[in-house]
Amino acid sequence: MGYSDVDRLAINTIRVLAVDATFTANSGHPGAPMGLAPTAHVLFNKFMDFNPKNPKWLNRDRFVLSNGHGCMLHYALLHLFGYAVSIDDLKNFRKVDSITPGHPEAHDTPGIEVTTGPLGQGFSNAVGLAIAQAHTASVFNKPGFDLVSNYTYCIFGDGCAMEGIASEAASSAGHLQLGNLICIYDDNHISIDGDTACAFTEDVLKRFEAYGWHTQWVEDGDHDLEGIEAALEKAREVKDKPSVIKVTTTIGFGSKLQGTGGVHGNPLKADDCQAVKQKFGFDPEQSFVVPQGVYNLYHKRATEGAAKEQEWNQLLEKYGQEYKNEHADFTRRLAGDLPEGWEKNLPTYKPSDPAVASRKLSETVLTKIYQVIPELIGGSADLTGSNLTRWKDAVDFQPPSTKLGDWSGRYIRFGVREHAMAAIMNGLAAYGTIIPYGGTFLNFVSYAAGAVRLSSLSRVRTIMVATHDSIGLGEDGPTHQPVETLAHFRALPNMMVWRPADGNETSAAYYVALTSKHTPSIIALSRQNLPQLEGSTIENAVKGGYVLHEAENADITLISTGSEVGICVDAVKYLKEHHKITARVVSIPCFEIFDAQSKEYRLKCLPDGIPSLSVEVMSTLGWERYAHEQFGLNRFGASGPYKDVYKKFEFTPEGISTRAIATVDFYKGFKPRSPINRAFQQLI
Amino acid sequence: MGYSDVDRLAINTIRVLAVDATFTANSGHPGAPMGLAPTAHVLFNKFMDFNPKNPKWLNRDRFVLSNGHGCMLHYALLHLFGYAVSIDDLKNFRKVDSITPGHPEAHDTPGIEVTTGPLGQGFSNAVGLAIAQAHTASVFNKPGFDLVSNYTYCIFGDGCAMEGIASEAASSAGHLQLGNLICIYDDNHISIDGDTACAFTEDVLKRFEAYGWHTQWVEDGDHDLEGIEAALEKAREVKDKPSVIKVTTTIGFGSKLQGTGGVHGNPLKADDCQAVKQKFGFDPEQSFVVPQGVYNLYHKRATEGAAKEQEWNQLLEKYGQEYKNEHADFTRRLAGDLPEGWEKNLPTYKPSDPAVASRKLSETVLTKIYQVIPELIGGSADLTGSNLTRWKDAVDFQPPSTKLGDWSGRYIRFGVREHAMAAIMNGLAAYGTIIPYGGTFLNFVSYAAGAVRLSSLSRVRTIMVATHDSIGLGEDGPTHQPVETLAHFRALPNMMVWRPADGNETSAAYYVALTSKHTPSIIALSRQNLPQLEGSTIENAVKGGYVLHEAENADITLISTGSEVGICVDAVKYLKEHHKITARVVSIPCFEIFDAQSKEYRLKCLPDGIPSLSVEVMSTLGWERYAHEQFGLNRFGASGPYKDVYKKFEFTPEGISTRAIATVDFYKGFKPRSPINRAFQQLI
Repeated sequence: MGYSDVDRLAINTIRVLAVDATFTANSGHPGAPMGLAPTAHVLFNKFMDFNPKNPKWLNRDRFVLSNGHGCMLHYALLHLFGYAVSIDDLKNFRKVDSITPGHPEAHDTPGIEVTTGPLGQGFSNAVGLAIAQAHTASVFNKPGFDLVSNYTYCIFGDGCAMEGIASEAASSAGHLQLGNLICIYDDNHISIDGDTACAFTEDVLKRFEAYGWHTQWVEDGDHDLEGIEAALEKAREVKDKPSVIKVTTTIGFGSKLQGTGGVHGNPLKADDCQAVKQKFGFDPEQSFVVPQGVYNLYHKRATEGAAKEQEWNQLLEKYGQEYKNEHADFTRRLAGDLPEGWEKNLPTYKPSDPAVASRKLSETVLTKIYQVIPELIGGSADLTGSNLTRWKDAVDFQPPSTKLGDWSGRYIRFGVREHAMAAIMNGLAAYGTIIPYGGTFLNFVSYAAGAVRLSSLSRVRTIMVATHDSIGLGEDGPTHQPVETLAHFRALPNMMVWRPADGNETSAAYYVALTSKHTPSIIALSRQNLPQLEGSTIENAVKGGYVLHEAENADITLISTGSEVGICVDAVKYLKEHHKITARVVSIPCFEIFDAQSKEYRLKCLPDGIPSLSVEVMSTLGWERYAHEQFGLNRFGASGPYKDVYKKFEFTPEGISTRAIATVDFYKGFKPRSPINRAFQQLI
Repeated sequence: MGYSDVDRLAINTIRVLAVDATFTANSGHPGAPMGLAPTAHVLFNKFMDFNPKNPKWLNRDRFVLSNGHGCMLHYALLHLFGYAVSIDDLKNFRKVDSITPGHPEAHDTPGIEVTTGPLGQGFSNAVGLAIAQAHTASVFNKPGFDLVSNYTYCIFGDGCAMEGIASEAASSAGHLQLGNLICIYDDNHISIDGDTACAFTEDVLKRFEAYGWHTQWVEDGDHDLEGIEAALEKAREVKDKPSVIKVTTTIGFGSKLQGTGGVHGNPLKADDCQAVKQKFGFDPEQSFVVPQGVYNLYHKRATEGAAKEQEWNQLLEKYGQEYKNEHADFTRRLAGDLPEGWEKNLPTYKPSDPAVASRKLSETVLTKIYQVIPELIGGSADLTGSNLTRWKDAVDFQPPSTKLGDWSGRYIRFGVREHAMAAIMNGLAAYGTIIPYGGTFLNFVSYAAGAVRLSSLSRVRTIMVATHDSIGLGEDGPTHQPVETLAHFRALPNMMVWRPADGNETSAAYYVALTSKHTPSIIALSRQNLPQLEGSTIENAVKGGYVLHEAENADITLISTGSEVGICVDAVKYLKEHHKITARVVSIPCFEIFDAQSKEYRLKCLPDGIPSLSVEVMSTLGWERYAHEQFGLNRFGASGPYKDVYKKFEFTPEGISTRAIATVDFYKGFKPRSPINRAFQQLI
């Protein structure tokens, strides 16, 4: 304990930097940084271990600013402690191509752990980071080798506290007894609509208690540095529960408008900027000024952190001598590389093999690879028996006291919490030692859309196992049958949406998903059985699209995915027998990967001169990119046995043939250009 | 109080019907109906007022089964009480084109209030129904005329309790002190993954207490009918808080597998079906048997309900004599019709009018129409000042005790709870007297995707005011800039996605949204100013697409939406001046409405022989449907002042011209067929 003038100066420096940066940007959120500066100062300078020179040191304490709009708080700290965030970077706050965007983006800025701003996400990422720490520690720590011992700290505001995703994540964290997770609730009573009294009057700490969290309240977060420190100290001592500390603060502390909505999302006026500086002993005429004493204070802490990393590196080296295999595995996982030869475990299929649902094929993949890829950790949002995401002898990730598993367990019971699951996966992936997967119905990936979007933006390797992928789920009906979902996620940049047609394509989907270090995947899988197709191989399918069935002088190309590919193959026979029409079949299990192939290859698949028809029991939106004509489902499905539902919507060899004939007729005497030919390249 | 054998017989009849229907369907969820039958019996037979012959009677008590997979409970009750749900309908459970689909769908089945199944939705709809009741009562009730006095009852399970959306809605309901809302938590300890101990160990009642709810616990929900009744009675007496009653039940009560996951999502085995029937005194060899005494009991209650409606109709008639205007308004609202001539209030604009952000144009529409459309009730998910969803002298919908508004207020402070907002809107719309709207950033409509999907499926008139609709929001950056969102919701059946280009188009969007009784809308609006365009009129824009700028012998058609239409108009000049290229411009503010126009009209807009280029700062997915070539943003945006961001991605007259020239070159010597021409019609 014991705080002096330099501490207060440091706190006020953070505040003034936030004022200057938002003023210069003429945009941004000064209020939260000004209110949270005391808390952040105590947290960073007294508790957190990190080395600004190596922001990726594994055993660093993690910090997540879930109220990401307050990012000037974090950017200021990163700069002051000596991360590669310069004072010019602060001056470029919210400018195009800066490393200081309007909300923190993990892939761009050293020291930013996860991409936050969309409310509730960071909080849920923090739960993922804490799970990752507990699991990794359990797997790798040995007596005398406390290799993995970091805490995860998270600050969240009223907005995050209102979001359902954070409720889901908090309930999970309480159940999981994550003693390594310490969250600070910035209780400033202000959200964009003004005083939270207008919409948010619940007792937040009582709610967290109900989830099983340890709770504390620091009543004067503006001044009571000792109180903040004591609460953090206490929270670290509580090992069997996550902790939340409500810190009551004044938003925009120091501004003329402090404590009001006026300082939340707008820069201070020029005269207020000056007044703040004067109040805090800064020259009102100067901007972006950092007193040397503040640099000295923070650099001292950074040096201590660097020394801790140095010690840790020595520990790791010694660990390598005593635990050679574990060490090799640990460093391999840190590099993000898969074990050599792992792909030999991927199952392959012959056309004579039995028809199997692709969700079951996915289960087979997991069962075959889990032993060779120990970093593969996942679960399901309470649909384990339907998603088939659990290999037979999996151990649950659970607090040992539950007797339902242990910390080394690799199967996570996410509960009916799709949105938190996806955000927790983002946190798991961000930790550095885990490749996470999570199961739900494809339709309910939509519940998780907010987090899935951030998987893409933050370029993490997560895998969503999305079963029951169409009207083929049958009786559950339109409430559960996705129609728009594939279009949605195909439109999301940097997201691989897979819809494999059979066993080989399912293996290919996992192959690409697991080897793509910076791209998340959604694998859409059928409930119903699918035949093993002639012409499908892993080698073909990893290209994202390929000619499954070639034919000379073809009249038409049928292009399809997943469960409809097999029906297209049947339609080829039907067309030949009944209509003397020759059709070829192209399977495109993943648009994103197919698009990345050479134009020459794509034109081989979808050549000029042959009309084409896409066949997929979903919205046709987007299929115009590949096919001249589209057979799809631009309406909701129906509840009934799946074969009846397919028949109702005419997704049968006959129904496909009808559209194929119409397409051939429409293009009679006309050699259409392949849709692969484009006038210009898209920006990427 | 006082329950006799016939009550127990009725309860067991419900159970046996659920067993028979799921067995016959070979699919479905018998467990919840078997466990909940006692609760539902007490609720329906002792408390709820309804008339099965007129399921739309306004003052009926509302019932929502949020755990919609247990719908055989509700279907059985509807049949037994005499709704137009026959025993054959029960036999057709989960069959194609039945009125008894796998999850309840409001538009198909008499007596189903809202479409449930996706977990957490029904609970949140119930909050909407309760808000609607409180508001409608406050507006129309007069001394001696308690015209609107119904309760909303909702049953929800562990799954709903885990979903974030329900947490959001529960927090809102607590804040709003909705004493007319009574929720029953089916505490059966089972979800799909088995015992809830594996993922859900929080104290649910304590959590609801923290939200400000009144809480009770019935420990033996399998037998304690008196306890259930007493708790419901007590809950009705609590007028200043919503109530939750935890009823501990045995899932699948009566089955050999009762109390286990085995009865959750699978029919009972044949021998178990027989055993259940024997146990409950039914003939094990017969199915779908209803003892006459049960019909008698329930029909008596139904008759009482019909009499109550009769009384109410008389009250309404008398009300009409005393309060002529209110009565006229009330009946008009019930019919779903708008006041005559309301559309005269829609603002129109001339090209000489100043450039205005379309979010601001939306505010002007709301300001001009709120007085003539009193059923228009809405709010924002804590972005009021950004969404501009509040007219200046709006009164908040708030409990009077908060002194922040009153029950007659028409502005709802949803809090940072997008998903619950959308589901509450579905409930508001389902009540019958309200047209709801809600504001958030377009990017965060994705948080609400689960509920927005059900707006479409259940065919309700809801309006999502989705501002900050693109990279044009500028500094907030990629975390807030939608790219995939329009494609997502354009792929959703029965959803109108509007992206107006100026004032007249904004008025048109509201016109169509408000007059489409069975179709929800999302109106995407700009943060930045947009010019008033030459050629835009309400009459044009209500067609969903039109020729904004015609040109003879055009070399190219530019097709665009929203903020890019004005840039296309500038590009026309640029192309002419710099490249002697003649371009025409088509604005398509709403795909769904444009698609509904005649082919002739659409071909007039997008004629054969002229190559076309779409221009929209979003994913190009889906634009191939209208344009030969697409200029879009198939990547994430950037944080910076919006003009810099537009420039970075070349959405300028010059950038558009470059693509237009490439398109013209690509089609040189070739008269392309309009994409409007298709080989065959889509199923709808």
